[in-house]
Parts: sequence; C-alpha cells; structure tokens
Amino acid sequence: MTDKLMEKTISTEPIFKGKVISLQVDTVELPDGSTATREIVKHPGAVAVLAFHNERLLMVDQFRQAMGRCELEIPAGKLEKGEDPMEAAARELEEETGYRCERMTLLHSFYTAPGFSDEVIHLYLAEELTSGEMSPDEDEFLEVYEVSFEEAQRYIAEGRIADAKTMVAFYIWQQRKLSQQAGK
Amino acid sequence: MTDKLMEKTISTEPIFKGKVISLQVDTVELPDGSTATREIVKHPGAVAVLAFHNERLLMVDQFRQAMGRCELEIPAGKLEKGEDPMEAAARELEEETGYRCERMTLLHSFYTAPGFSDEVIHLYLAEELTSGEMSPDEDEFLEVYEVSFEEAQRYIAEGRIADAKTMVAFYIWQQRKLSQQAGK
Repeated sequence: MTDKLMEKTISTEPIFKGKVISLQVDTVELPDGSTATREIVKHPGAVAVLAFHNERLLMVDQFRQAMGRCELEIPAGKLEKGEDPMEAAARELEEETGYRCERMTLLHSFYTAPGFSDEVIHLYLAEELTSGEMSPDEDEFLEVYEVSFEEAQRYIAEGRIADAKTMVAFYIWQQRKLSQQAGK
Repeated sequence: MTDKLMEKTISTEPIFKGKVISLQVDTVELPDGSTATREIVKHPGAVAVLAFHNERLLMVDQFRQAMGRCELEIPAGKLEKGEDPMEAAARELEEETGYRCERMTLLHSFYTAPGFSDEVIHLYLAEELTSGEMSPDEDEFLEVYEVSFEEAQRYIAEGRIADAKTMVAFYIWQQRKLSQQAGK
C-alpha cells in the first residue's frame, strides 16, 4: 500500500439527492498530476442477516426494479440516520421475516461496488431466534422462504439467487457446514 | 416466485448520464396499486477474474475514490460497449496484471447492489497463465500483488480486502482448497 497510488479530490459537484442515494461527480488529481472525474453514488450503508430456522436459511423474495424481476435474497435493508448497524440488522430481520434474535455477530463489512459507490453492507449472523410478526416498509412487498442448502445451490444455478451479499452469505453457510462435518 | 410481488414501471425520469454510470428515477406501481419511486443507477456491467500464479491469487491495489483509500481487489473492470464478457475478462486480466490466459471459465454472474443498481459482475476463473505486459487505462494507477491464502485471510481481517466480488472470490478459493485437501 503506497502513497504513489493516492488520488486527491480537487472538487465535488453534487448532481442529485434522492430518498436513498445521492450522486456526485468528483474531480481528482491522479498520481501523475493529471486530472480525471469519478462518478460517485453515496449510500447510507446497509445491513444483511444470515439467519437459520431448523437448519434452513431465512430468505425474502422481492421485486427488484433494477433487475426487472423478483429475486431471493437474505434479509437486508439500509441504515437509518444515526442507526447502529447491529440494531438495524435486528430491526430488518424482524420487519422482513418476523423473527427476533437474541444474539447478533458481525461476520464481515464489505463494499458492494467500490468502483462507483460507497455503499457498505454489514453482514451479521443472527442466532437464538424467536418468531414474531412481519412488518415490512409500506413500499416493500415480500415473501419469506426457509431454504435448505440444496435448494440454495439450485437457486444459485438457476439465477433466482443472484446478488453479491447473498452469494457471500451462501459461501459462509457452506463453510460452516464443512467445518461442522469436519468436527464430527 | 409469484406475480403478486410484481411492480410495474409507470415512468422513467433520466437524471444524469456519465462516463461510467447513468441515473434515473422510475415511478412504479406497487402490488397494492399505490405508487413509489425507485432510484436506479444503470451500469454497463463488469467482469472480475480469479487467477493464480504459483498458488497465489493475483490482486491489484488501487485507490478507490468512493472509499477514500486504496484497496486490494481481484482484477476487474467494466464491459466495453458490445464486448463479450469472457473477452473482457481476458482483456482486464492482461491490462491490469500483464498475464494472459488460455482458459476462462464463468464461475458466477451476480448483481452487486440490486437495491439501486443493475450492475452485474461476471466472475471468471482464468487458467494456464503466461506472463506478458501490463497496460492499464490512462486514468488507472495500480500495483499487482501475488497473495497467499494466509495473507488474503489477514487482509480481510484488516479491511485491506473489503469488497463483495473479492469476498466471493476468496470463498471460492477456500472452497477449492478444501476440495483439493479432501481429494488427497
């Protein structure tokens, strides 16, 4: 990691401020002294939750306008202003699936699209679940599924599971299963 | 997967058209007949490459304006207009690392941020590498690293590896190692 890769922000032009994202175009000075522009989508950050019920992964099916179709994902949602990510994860899990949990563990925080966005997803493992009631946001329509490992493999092959955070979650699940088998 | 989750696009307002991304706000009709807006970042799609040299993962260190710092990622880049993803993967691998490859296999295609963007990354495995010369884009400054599995684990823990596609690549690598060990 060297300073010779550093870029310096010269100016920031705000383009759009929306409900969820905002867009700006930054002009940066490159390491060789020349300039370039970078289109940056600002996002408040998000949480996603790996949660199991009877060894099945809790997933939500919802329409994604960006994809033009429905997709199965792990429960997730954006951070509210000033919200603690762990509390947001518990909130999203309960809103989207109805399940509460006693224990949340941070597995990873990762950037989804570092080439053009600052969105970070904090991925949590939720344990010790108890069932409650779903209460999705008013513009959010979804269905909850409890998916076996074999079903998840098939959904990935079929493209019904097709987003990065759910792929990461799937591989962590696979890893856990292999570790459990090795420990037997 | 049911029709009752479907949303219907009523109108699309173009907001911005940039070098890499464009932004639009869609008004959609929700399943209950009410309307909502969806902020959508259109992206041409991208490729990323899992490639090994002497059992070490080829990675590039580069400054990410969206993150405000450098990050280690697998070689990647966006699709050029009309470009075949497999050819783009070979092109990006060579431009960014100098390596050519004889064999490319598609591992996964996934959406990075389906809540607000249509960006799809096609992740390839590159095999049978031969060394050549790097030729990064003129506004792209990067350094190539060959990273061992243990180093990659440490970089993830330290946050030097911190993006979704590289996490997915890491887990596929871990999976391959476990399979190889099991096969011995």
